[in-house]
Amino acid sequence: MTEQLTLSQPRRGLTVAQLSKEQIGNMHRYFQAANYLSVGQIYLLDNPMLKLPLKREHIKPRLLGHWGTTPGLNFIFVHANRVIVERDVSMIYITGPGHGGPGFVANTWLEGSYEEFFPAIDRTEAGMQRLFKQFSFPRGIPSHVAPETPGSMHEGGELGYSVSHAYGAALDNPDQVVIAVVGDGEAETGPLAASWHSTKYIHPINDGFVLPILHLNGYKIANPTLLARMDKEEVTNLFKGYGYEPIFVELKQETFNDKLDTFDQIHIDMAAAMDLCMDKFAAIRAAAIAEQEAGKPITRPRWPMIVMRTPKGWTGPKEIKGKKVEDYWRSHQVPFSDIDDENVINLENWMRSYQIETLFNADGSVKQELVDLAPKGIKRFGSNPIVHGQVSKDLKMPDFRKYEVKFAKPGTENAEMTRVMGKFLRDVMKENEAEKNFRIFGPDETASNRWNDVFEVSGKTWLANFFEEDKTNDFLQQDGRVMEILSEHTCQGWLEAYNLTGRHGFFSCYEAFIHVIDSMFNQHAKWLKTTKHINWRKPIPSLNYLLTSHVWRQDHNGFSHQDPGFLDHVINKKAEVIRVYLPADANTLLSVTDHVLRSRHYVNVIVAGKQPALQYLTMDQAIKHATTGLGIWDWASNDQGGEPDVVMACAGEIPTMEALAATDLLRQHFPDLKIRFVNVCDLMTLQPQEEHPHGLSDREFDAIFTTDKPVMFAFHGYPWLIHRLTYRRNGHANIHARGYIEEGSTSTPFDMVVVNQLDRFNLAIDVIDRVPHLQKIGAHVRQKLVGKLVEHAEYIAEVGDDMPEVKEWKWTY
Amino acid sequence: MTEQLTLSQPRRGLTVAQLSKEQIGNMHRYFQAANYLSVGQIYLLDNPMLKLPLKREHIKPRLLGHWGTTPGLNFIFVHANRVIVERDVSMIYITGPGHGGPGFVANTWLEGSYEEFFPAIDRTEAGMQRLFKQFSFPRGIPSHVAPETPGSMHEGGELGYSVSHAYGAALDNPDQVVIAVVGDGEAETGPLAASWHSTKYIHPINDGFVLPILHLNGYKIANPTLLARMDKEEVTNLFKGYGYEPIFVELKQETFNDKLDTFDQIHIDMAAAMDLCMDKFAAIRAAAIAEQEAGKPITRPRWPMIVMRTPKGWTGPKEIKGKKVEDYWRSHQVPFSDIDDENVINLENWMRSYQIETLFNADGSVKQELVDLAPKGIKRFGSNPIVHGQVSKDLKMPDFRKYEVKFAKPGTENAEMTRVMGKFLRDVMKENEAEKNFRIFGPDETASNRWNDVFEVSGKTWLANFFEEDKTNDFLQQDGRVMEILSEHTCQGWLEAYNLTGRHGFFSCYEAFIHVIDSMFNQHAKWLKTTKHINWRKPIPSLNYLLTSHVWRQDHNGFSHQDPGFLDHVINKKAEVIRVYLPADANTLLSVTDHVLRSRHYVNVIVAGKQPALQYLTMDQAIKHATTGLGIWDWASNDQGGEPDVVMACAGEIPTMEALAATDLLRQHFPDLKIRFVNVCDLMTLQPQEEHPHGLSDREFDAIFTTDKPVMFAFHGYPWLIHRLTYRRNGHANIHARGYIEEGSTSTPFDMVVVNQLDRFNLAIDVIDRVPHLQKIGAHVRQKLVGKLVEHAEYIAEVGDDMPEVKEWKWTY
Repeated sequence: MTEQLTLSQPRRGLTVAQLSKEQIGNMHRYFQAANYLSVGQIYLLDNPMLKLPLKREHIKPRLLGHWGTTPGLNFIFVHANRVIVERDVSMIYITGPGHGGPGFVANTWLEGSYEEFFPAIDRTEAGMQRLFKQFSFPRGIPSHVAPETPGSMHEGGELGYSVSHAYGAALDNPDQVVIAVVGDGEAETGPLAASWHSTKYIHPINDGFVLPILHLNGYKIANPTLLARMDKEEVTNLFKGYGYEPIFVELKQETFNDKLDTFDQIHIDMAAAMDLCMDKFAAIRAAAIAEQEAGKPITRPRWPMIVMRTPKGWTGPKEIKGKKVEDYWRSHQVPFSDIDDENVINLENWMRSYQIETLFNADGSVKQELVDLAPKGIKRFGSNPIVHGQVSKDLKMPDFRKYEVKFAKPGTENAEMTRVMGKFLRDVMKENEAEKNFRIFGPDETASNRWNDVFEVSGKTWLANFFEEDKTNDFLQQDGRVMEILSEHTCQGWLEAYNLTGRHGFFSCYEAFIHVIDSMFNQHAKWLKTTKHINWRKPIPSLNYLLTSHVWRQDHNGFSHQDPGFLDHVINKKAEVIRVYLPADANTLLSVTDHVLRSRHYVNVIVAGKQPALQYLTMDQAIKHATTGLGIWDWASNDQGGEPDVVMACAGEIPTMEALAATDLLRQHFPDLKIRFVNVCDLMTLQPQEEHPHGLSDREFDAIFTTDKPVMFAFHGYPWLIHRLTYRRNGHANIHARGYIEEGSTSTPFDMVVVNQLDRFNLAIDVIDRVPHLQKIGAHVRQKLVGKLVEHAEYIAEVGDDMPEVKEWKWTY
Repeated sequence: MTEQLTLSQPRRGLTVAQLSKEQIGNMHRYFQAANYLSVGQIYLLDNPMLKLPLKREHIKPRLLGHWGTTPGLNFIFVHANRVIVERDVSMIYITGPGHGGPGFVANTWLEGSYEEFFPAIDRTEAGMQRLFKQFSFPRGIPSHVAPETPGSMHEGGELGYSVSHAYGAALDNPDQVVIAVVGDGEAETGPLAASWHSTKYIHPINDGFVLPILHLNGYKIANPTLLARMDKEEVTNLFKGYGYEPIFVELKQETFNDKLDTFDQIHIDMAAAMDLCMDKFAAIRAAAIAEQEAGKPITRPRWPMIVMRTPKGWTGPKEIKGKKVEDYWRSHQVPFSDIDDENVINLENWMRSYQIETLFNADGSVKQELVDLAPKGIKRFGSNPIVHGQVSKDLKMPDFRKYEVKFAKPGTENAEMTRVMGKFLRDVMKENEAEKNFRIFGPDETASNRWNDVFEVSGKTWLANFFEEDKTNDFLQQDGRVMEILSEHTCQGWLEAYNLTGRHGFFSCYEAFIHVIDSMFNQHAKWLKTTKHINWRKPIPSLNYLLTSHVWRQDHNGFSHQDPGFLDHVINKKAEVIRVYLPADANTLLSVTDHVLRSRHYVNVIVAGKQPALQYLTMDQAIKHATTGLGIWDWASNDQGGEPDVVMACAGEIPTMEALAATDLLRQHFPDLKIRFVNVCDLMTLQPQEEHPHGLSDREFDAIFTTDKPVMFAFHGYPWLIHRLTYRRNGHANIHARGYIEEGSTSTPFDMVVVNQLDRFNLAIDVIDRVPHLQKIGAHVRQKLVGKLVEHAEYIAEVGDDMPEVKEWKWTY
């Protein structure tokens, strides 16, 4: 599409040729102002404008923060600002090296957005002093581009997600340009390496423009970076391979060690590169529109990106006490933190090198010609309402009741839960087609997970090459709304950013492999927890997971595909942002789905199966059940109006079926045994009220589970999770939980529950062993049940399938 | 280095030119035999050689398995075998698409290794029937390339790790060629995308050769793959960018739909490509040796790799009932599983298309000319002892006692625990230098985590470009033994494979970000659990983690860096393979380190801090403490010879310090209060004996913790983990755990414990509130302690650092 560009000269036809010497000078001063403010934040407690000679007491007692990446970020800010102003575009700034917090804060302070959120940190000398002091200071602000930083939607603390976040934010936001600064450290991570392929999912007309800026500053904490130590040709090839046209902006070694005016060239190069990218974006869109109007498929563009090579710790001290600092890993954090007399002088010299008097007026306000460079209003990076959750519409929701699964009698008819859910999601997608604010994400599993019906409304997003056969099945679509890539990381990153910018979605995933994004979930949950208490950040749509193809139905894929532990992981995070649902049938799942799509600022985890499964609750019952979160199923209980002998509890569709089958067996054999059947849909109801807002009061809990009767709890996940939730409950000592205990192989569905002792026979045996009066009279039945387990083992090893009596089991009462 | 190659013709000078028509024919029959056996495994219960017309009862009632990828794997097997035989090399076969289990099993059966492990599955008709029946059959074998599959060291169930596993296996194994088949599905994942950069870490003389074969079969479960739908030029660029020279082997669309003899060309191309790769390996090594001998640094080679484009479900049915199957996603699993009359015929036709009579003798044995193609003895893929843990030496261990940290009095002198550990590891590395069987792995953090001393013995592996400054600090070394890449996934993959092939290592990681590899840990733990019970797999060196830069010392990086939840995640896996240690001081850490490096077949997780911390135990005490796993610290207790009023328990270095400081405070204020101080190093001692082999008996537990006295437990991680471990203990109701409750920001170290209520003042208040006789007499002290918390908050917000009395605290008794 274009030749490879190294912009050592302003290029013919680019607007940059019109940059005056004065403009370049002002831009450089803006850059230096941001650098000055960044150093000040890291080091100074007082004397912010160096009106006094610097003394030790002006310096913070603990020095925390990251200098190394910061000047590069500042440099990009000033150039992005120029583009915003000149072209009147709206931009989002994703900071991959989020530890460069001082830079983001400095720029929002300079542009005036910061003081609108934090009036005490105004653009005065006193404000500057407070700006400096608060940074990385106890009860001040974090050192990273945290939720507390206006304009940020990406903390960048954990590396790997800047590019997927950028693309997620750009989806369906055609008027946004999203800058994604990628550090060369972050670029080594797996999630990031995969996410460059987002080029095959971004639509040049319907979506916004992502401008990745790979920042090769050469070093990590204590090592060179791989991408900075590859041949330039390799870097070029790599990104061409990913679908980009890389444009190099490189500070020459011989210039950056010199005086201020030698910066001119890199400013010119960067301005030219930014303009070239913007021009390319415009050209790409125009070409795509022309193709669209001609009824042709859109040719996937080769997207522009910038590879910017500037030294780590740029403009900082070159050496301190004989050790190399600038352009070296030593500048990664605080370049020097032993504040002796020599280093006080070093710091003062460093800060004065920015020529403070050319940057700020005596009262601390920013020089007018610099103020003039910044965008105004919501065009400022710190004020873009999109990243503060301020632009977000609720979904239009079809009435979920109309998808009700009807049946004659509970526990006797099958339905595929997730298929029913898929029909509902299809119509959610349809109703919100005009708004373009709902998408579905998943690693190649939308169909496998039985959400096929959504394809009636939209195909799968695909801008890579098309073959003939793609047309016949109609599932691939350039502007599809179902995003599939075999990278849970990329799916998660896209969806997080889609949520963070106010839009809605659902992520369906094989239960075992959702652990791939454990760490991403952590970061998002932490973001939600913090932003919940920031008033200028509005609640964003919840992050919704459907975990299916779950542990009890991975008898075909075997042991590696069996892991229900994401629930354990999730509930370690703050209760205020975490919700976990285990609906046992399709109608309950519908009600839960409706609820989570209406909710905001949670992570909602739903576990539900995709295979045909028995149905239990009418829609009215299901709504009540999903709303209270757990309940006694009267139709399955026979303790009406009295105390039960045993409580049979369960959570999850397969445990529910096994618990019901066990109840059925027990009632057949012991008609006088009083069984109370309890199903839990909202897992967090089990926790004490003080621990989770959904938790039952002890009185409610005791009324359902009793305080003294044996409780058999058949659980979808690891059984100890039930104990972790209920250990403070009065009747806890009587709870006996069964669940997945890391046993399984390629086998049959029923064998999966047998080897984990969660099956009907084992559950019934458990009851016999624990209800005092059964221990004697039940011996014969117990023996029979043990025999059933032997019979099962023999049958499957011979026939290769489950016994008909198990496969075809139905509730009899 | 070389031009881009598309081998449509055998190339001049390559041995493949010497392949006779007969040899090609035999190789093709070998390929077809493997295909036949693969289909048989997926479908047949009986009638394995189709001596009878196929009937429904010969077919399994449940059809499970993956056909799509299998023929491609089989094709590679026959070509790899040729190279092994002709060049007498040793190879390992890493199956990225591990769900292609039928292929791996078929090939080990054909070569005769399978029957050596499983004598009943011999190369007879009866053996073939058992081979078919057992596959994906209950109590048979898993459908994937599982631990049960001879020759496998990589399950491939969860995608993403084939390339990092291949490189990990190749390290320090210069005589091994490691084939890494990468599916184009897997190639979309993040971990895989990062791991291609392993090219900068593999040494052309000291390490083995990795031959990646990217298999573009075009489809995943229900979608095309990205890499198959990029332009060929993009694929070429991408892999050149990663440091490879890709060689394309592509079946032309027009040939693969035709008859047998049209396969000739692809065999010729593949043979030529394999030979070219082997020749390149030899040339690369020769060039490196020449450079080495000339005293020059080795030029990083551009490594050969193969991009193989063959259709998914190759040689299978082209269409079934009018729907495209071969070369389409429909062939991913079982191509058709509705076994009606028509499909019985389809299956029979398909299987007969392999011309069974040309593959096997009437008794089921393999035709001699095919047997002759396979390697012999341990050169067979199924018999390579390296992947069965059979080649593994114990480490030579220096005496860890000599690194003892000495001090005058417990709790009064500081040491950096991990720095002391680093000295020990330095000498472990030194003692095993000749064996080359110990490496250290980490994402850019070896120095940050204070293991610097290892650099006295070895630099960091680095074959990317060198700069002048790398020489001066001497840390980068082409044959270094410290592997650093900012990809936890790649570190984990390398180390897993290094362990799986019998070698030893340590992975140091920031505690919060070890969650990045949660899912990889799961898979490895599952592998360990299964292989523990397979007698021809020998115990492999344990996977050792040091988690440092932990939650209580991330006051400088803030909330995103605070997560101690990996422990919760780890202990969900089988107790027999999981160990968790929280040593509280350097001497205990030394003893634990010695223990884990000697251990086999565990995952050992050690959590320890890198900052200066108080020291408590002499080496003799530490050894005893680490061995029993927990114990009463007499010197910190004052209940000698009697019952305590309260038990102060702790685990982890920071909680230990806070618990000690609380004890100190309490003893000052209440000299008569009897406090028993208990420290836990081995977390699993808390679990009941029935749950974990390290668990204390109830008698032991009760003797230490009492059954009726309040127990304050200061814990490193999430507090509920303590309850999850102890809920069955007699005194559980009296245990009050404190730990991380997801509170924190950029702050001070002491503030971190305060906001999570784990600090000395809160712990002391907790004791006052829980010891009955203190509730009255302690009111005044309680008030004073609350005042301390206020004082702390005011002090840090003003000064920016912790109060001296906290920072400089020492044990006074």
